[in-house]
Amino acid sequence: MTVAEPWRDPRLPAAERVADLMARMTLPEKVGQLYGIWLGMSDGDDDVAPFQHELVDNVLDWPRLIEQGLGQLTRPLGSAPVTPVAGTARLAAMQADIVAAGRFGIPALVHEECLAGLMAWGATVYPTALAWGASFAPELVEGIAEQIGATMRQLGIHQGLAPVLDVVRDPRWGRTEETAGEDPYLVATITTAYVRGLQSTGIVATLKHLVGYSASRAGRNFGPVAVGRRELADVLLLPFLHAVTEGGAGSVMPSYAEVDGVPPTADPNLLTRLLREDWGFDGTVVSDYFAVTFVETQHGLAAGPAEAAALALEAGVDVELPTVRCYGQPLIEAVRTGLVDESVVDRAVRRVLRQKCELGLLDPDWEPTTVDGRVTLDPEPGRELARRLAEESVVLLANDGTLPLRAGTRIAVVGPQADDVSAMFGCYSFPSHVGSQHPEVPMGVEIPTLLEALAAEVPPELVEYARGCDVSDLSTDGLDEAVAVARRADVCVVAIGDRAGLFGRGTSGEGCDVPDLRLPGAQHQLVEAVLATGTPVVLVLLSGRPYALGPYASRTAAIVQAFFPGEEGGSAVAGVLSGRVEPAGRLPVSVPADPYAHAAGYLAPLLGHQNGASSVDPTALFPFGHGLSYSDFKWDSFALSTRDVPTDGATTLSLTVTNTGERAGADVVQLYLHDPVAQVTRPVVRLIGYVKVRLAPGESRRVEFDVPASAAAFTGRAGHRVVEPGELELRLSASSTAVRHVESLRLVGPELPVGPTHVARVGVTVR
Amino acid sequence: MTVAEPWRDPRLPAAERVADLMARMTLPEKVGQLYGIWLGMSDGDDDVAPFQHELVDNVLDWPRLIEQGLGQLTRPLGSAPVTPVAGTARLAAMQADIVAAGRFGIPALVHEECLAGLMAWGATVYPTALAWGASFAPELVEGIAEQIGATMRQLGIHQGLAPVLDVVRDPRWGRTEETAGEDPYLVATITTAYVRGLQSTGIVATLKHLVGYSASRAGRNFGPVAVGRRELADVLLLPFLHAVTEGGAGSVMPSYAEVDGVPPTADPNLLTRLLREDWGFDGTVVSDYFAVTFVETQHGLAAGPAEAAALALEAGVDVELPTVRCYGQPLIEAVRTGLVDESVVDRAVRRVLRQKCELGLLDPDWEPTTVDGRVTLDPEPGRELARRLAEESVVLLANDGTLPLRAGTRIAVVGPQADDVSAMFGCYSFPSHVGSQHPEVPMGVEIPTLLEALAAEVPPELVEYARGCDVSDLSTDGLDEAVAVARRADVCVVAIGDRAGLFGRGTSGEGCDVPDLRLPGAQHQLVEAVLATGTPVVLVLLSGRPYALGPYASRTAAIVQAFFPGEEGGSAVAGVLSGRVEPAGRLPVSVPADPYAHAAGYLAPLLGHQNGASSVDPTALFPFGHGLSYSDFKWDSFALSTRDVPTDGATTLSLTVTNTGERAGADVVQLYLHDPVAQVTRPVVRLIGYVKVRLAPGESRRVEFDVPASAAAFTGRAGHRVVEPGELELRLSASSTAVRHVESLRLVGPELPVGPTHVARVGVTVR
Repeated sequence: MTVAEPWRDPRLPAAERVADLMARMTLPEKVGQLYGIWLGMSDGDDDVAPFQHELVDNVLDWPRLIEQGLGQLTRPLGSAPVTPVAGTARLAAMQADIVAAGRFGIPALVHEECLAGLMAWGATVYPTALAWGASFAPELVEGIAEQIGATMRQLGIHQGLAPVLDVVRDPRWGRTEETAGEDPYLVATITTAYVRGLQSTGIVATLKHLVGYSASRAGRNFGPVAVGRRELADVLLLPFLHAVTEGGAGSVMPSYAEVDGVPPTADPNLLTRLLREDWGFDGTVVSDYFAVTFVETQHGLAAGPAEAAALALEAGVDVELPTVRCYGQPLIEAVRTGLVDESVVDRAVRRVLRQKCELGLLDPDWEPTTVDGRVTLDPEPGRELARRLAEESVVLLANDGTLPLRAGTRIAVVGPQADDVSAMFGCYSFPSHVGSQHPEVPMGVEIPTLLEALAAEVPPELVEYARGCDVSDLSTDGLDEAVAVARRADVCVVAIGDRAGLFGRGTSGEGCDVPDLRLPGAQHQLVEAVLATGTPVVLVLLSGRPYALGPYASRTAAIVQAFFPGEEGGSAVAGVLSGRVEPAGRLPVSVPADPYAHAAGYLAPLLGHQNGASSVDPTALFPFGHGLSYSDFKWDSFALSTRDVPTDGATTLSLTVTNTGERAGADVVQLYLHDPVAQVTRPVVRLIGYVKVRLAPGESRRVEFDVPASAAAFTGRAGHRVVEPGELELRLSASSTAVRHVESLRLVGPELPVGPTHVARVGVTVR
Repeated sequence: MTVAEPWRDPRLPAAERVADLMARMTLPEKVGQLYGIWLGMSDGDDDVAPFQHELVDNVLDWPRLIEQGLGQLTRPLGSAPVTPVAGTARLAAMQADIVAAGRFGIPALVHEECLAGLMAWGATVYPTALAWGASFAPELVEGIAEQIGATMRQLGIHQGLAPVLDVVRDPRWGRTEETAGEDPYLVATITTAYVRGLQSTGIVATLKHLVGYSASRAGRNFGPVAVGRRELADVLLLPFLHAVTEGGAGSVMPSYAEVDGVPPTADPNLLTRLLREDWGFDGTVVSDYFAVTFVETQHGLAAGPAEAAALALEAGVDVELPTVRCYGQPLIEAVRTGLVDESVVDRAVRRVLRQKCELGLLDPDWEPTTVDGRVTLDPEPGRELARRLAEESVVLLANDGTLPLRAGTRIAVVGPQADDVSAMFGCYSFPSHVGSQHPEVPMGVEIPTLLEALAAEVPPELVEYARGCDVSDLSTDGLDEAVAVARRADVCVVAIGDRAGLFGRGTSGEGCDVPDLRLPGAQHQLVEAVLATGTPVVLVLLSGRPYALGPYASRTAAIVQAFFPGEEGGSAVAGVLSGRVEPAGRLPVSVPADPYAHAAGYLAPLLGHQNGASSVDPTALFPFGHGLSYSDFKWDSFALSTRDVPTDGATTLSLTVTNTGERAGADVVQLYLHDPVAQVTRPVVRLIGYVKVRLAPGESRRVEFDVPASAAAFTGRAGHRVVEPGELELRLSASSTAVRHVESLRLVGPELPVGPTHVARVGVTVR
């Protein structure tokens, strides 16, 4: 092999190099690029659902597997905790094997989970994605993604299987914690920031899960999805459109859940017509784990692996992860028997090789990556970003003045989340997802619990602790002790919430769905017992989803909601309690009053809200966007540049935000659109812009929202997005229901179509 | 006016008569045919939702209203109970006014609610529609509809606002009781039988509610509907297709609830393209009450009544009920300002006049109807049918041998349903819907309670009664007495369930939705208290929806489920308890184990059922189709005429059913289809045929199912129904999960489209 072969020549355009390489490849060599394996996965591995076990390639003949090359590697650092040195050494050895075995010496593309930090032993554990939503701070999310990417790059990983762009439609779904909330614009802007940050380091981001996964019936994981095309376009697809067109994401993963009878993994309308033809996406589509097989075994669309491979490949799935079950020999057979045309294989191979080419994997100077013992996966800048994001994401839901805690307050700390570091982790954090299966191994990251962090904020002798109960266990044996501790204190902090886990082994996380939004285990009894003492109660939730707080809210002194805040989460929450940290988060999901899932959050049209036609009241206890501060903010000097706005025009809405309180703090100015008359029903309000303004006491800032008319676009009767002339209201609000100021305007001119790739981003300037 | 005018001439074709008449009419006269009023409705009327009150035309200038004619009259016998003599006299007087006032003397078309019997004082109260589903006996439903129609005709009523063809998707919805259950084929066949029966008497049936109403989010009445087009076509639209093409229904009512942003009342794709162009429907489309106004006020699609009128009329709503709010002066203005073309008005008027012509309302010899004092609205044949249908619809869910009760058994009867006649009525029964607002008026029909009926079956001295608790009140004051009574007995019958009402004034019925499927009020406490006595408990449910019975099932001696069984319901249930009546009902809706709504019932594809991907198990406690008998039945001698069936062919599946027990009884042979591989996901099984076989002890019958290949049709990838070649299973089952026999067959030949009006009816012969 010499550099004289065009495909090896870094000076030539990627397309030319790929074409040259493909012309030299046999069918098995090409197909070899389209699958990968899950390194070290075994039948006893708890990372897979019970019915996935049979699918694990647990007896692999490694030399035979790689003799035609091997396109992909999953979980490079293994399913058991390893040091970076050992992990990269093993990965490098495997890459060397792969390079040596195939005729062309193409290394595998290596991917790993990385949602709330790289899924590796000792890597920074960032807050979970629901906390990103609560921060309303995309710039911080971009920052953590950049750090995550840098870490991955250091280890020889090329692709991150994140972020999750699903929009919460039913918070009973266990993966709610992995999303940025219930508003498509918030999810779009937050996750697009993540994509930008990750890809700025050369790592390929993967948009999960196209589309509908979050809208499964009753929130059951993998459950069928009932959704109309308008809801699909305007709610569920919107974040993907942003992340593809604004974020330039390199990869997309289809959802497990079928949408109106069609699994996305087998849907050419979704993966080819919409994603590639309409949106111009030119990266790779990689299957969710085992999803190609599921086209046969779970969805019943194929009579065998070859048919499943043909359906998925035709639809536009380029890579099967993390198995050779369908895209291996069955796909080769499918081509040979005419079930699928080789040109369809070529289409996928071309995309994969182009990505490899851009990643330098076809270059002659490529070498496996290794690291030495000095490397840390939790470097100081990561830790600092984890801290800032955790702090910015803590939501103060209610406060009668008890918070911040006054100096000298005797504090009872009770609850299963108080002194358990697991309270900080989402399901897609290493300690939950992999580490929990290896309890003998230390976490590799120093993480204080809430109790430890609080004892560092206040004189430790003022703090007394009792666990009270478990997260999910029903035993109430510990309640008496908690009550006793609460009785002795001036304030009782009750730390409750979720334990993240996989497939039923947690109260939140993948496969950990719930039938209703009652607190898990005996935590309701704990809260009631402590409330009965009469000691003022500060409820602290460390959870992966919102819970029904109606039974408690009126009787608590304060409520603090954090969503699995990561390794610095204990300090962040303790800091909010002590007053060292300003609470600056806002709810990315509505907190319900009662435990029944009314679904679809604040975005419902009029008849989805309370009215006389139904005896069931779905009004949220704390609405989307709600969050308090320790300071006070005044909004005034409102101005609208133009009231009559052409349907292809724009207007500017500005205001002055002043911190009138005595503490520094951050306010989130939320801009909602109300469209009173339209050709289809519209949400009463929906978020079209937001900005977090950080202000010193007495400080003022001028905020300008540049609002394009297309911010009012929606999918009309004919099935495509339009900007309709007519009256509109821009509502400057402190939450989806707390309207502070309304400006009426009128879109004038003809109804205009909005192009398929148009993204209606409201620009914000803070002076 | 002379008969010389062609439109008056009964010898001429209807189209010619209508054309002649329309040519003579002014715009206001034509528009006058398109609306009606709610007779005697007042602002204090509880029949309307709170937000409907403002819409009631409660101050009407009668002479002015009718001066251009008046097309329609709602609630002819008034909102307060009247005798048939007084009611028809008043109606006749109004008709005489209308005939005298307009230039053409056209009487109004009179419509009334009639789902579970004519909504009139003293009329037979039949079992509610959910009980029809439970009967699996369409021939009986046809019979009651014929009786209802005969009664209506007698009173001068032309159109019945029934049946309800909605398919249950979430039993939390209050109107679940008005449906025939969760299976579209069952709903289709039962409601089509009703349409046939009603229309055989010359009464126009109205199909309610096209479409999607039952699929609102979380079962909230009027709530937005998320549904894909395949689910819409194969589940929600299917009954309408049957009732239009097989039943020849004369009228259709669009649903209140928006579907993916489009209210059916303003949807031309639904009301014109699908209903008229594809299905060939040529009757009238009448709005649900106030639904045209709601296009403006609730859906936000119109800026005022004229726009709402234009949208609805263009979409295909011919008649606005029960108000002149939009189709009155606003519609005239809409035509004059060019918002809607007069030809669109003409289209609606033509349909209305054609219907009037067919009803004889344009004939010169038309005269208002009156009756004399000898008329009864609850004649013996009606009462007999009410009895038979009630008996056939009682479902024996579980029985350890306690039922039928042995002679001499001391019976405790407790529970709020035991001695309250309201336990027998659905929301759309006169005593609930109208009568409940006039408690001073006797019901006009003699109706025994369960307790009274039971005391007539067994020696009354063996029966002791205590109410225990209320249906919805939370007080537990009566539990002790119930416990005492239970302790003294050999068996305790606990009669629990729902009280039907409107808009939150019941636990079931229109606007009486629930957040979960726990028993209402203190009934759970009652059941637990009685179970704790150790006396064997027979649970009797008289309800409008299924409730979660998981907490009790394993501890009860027997469970009997009746769905508001009507005026003979007390005797029917008592007869089942005593053994005089054979339980012969089967569940038309799944009974859940737990109170959480998993939605969509048994029809889910594989991933909608229990699996390892979700921690939430949606498995029903008693599945769709389940029901026990006091006798035993053997199925054998299975035969399939052809195993390779052309995609345009048919096959015959036959079996012998034998009553091997010692009692007469009825078995329901259910035929389900399992389609293992298809181009879209399919329900694991779905009902494609059924028959109830009534057998004396030792008697055998041969049952033949004629199964067209099109019974396997579904809406494919391309959006239209197809018959796909491939393997299938026909599963002869005693419920959706109790498979007794499987026949495999293969559809051979090309994939075939199924025409838009094709109905796949499996013929059944019993010899």
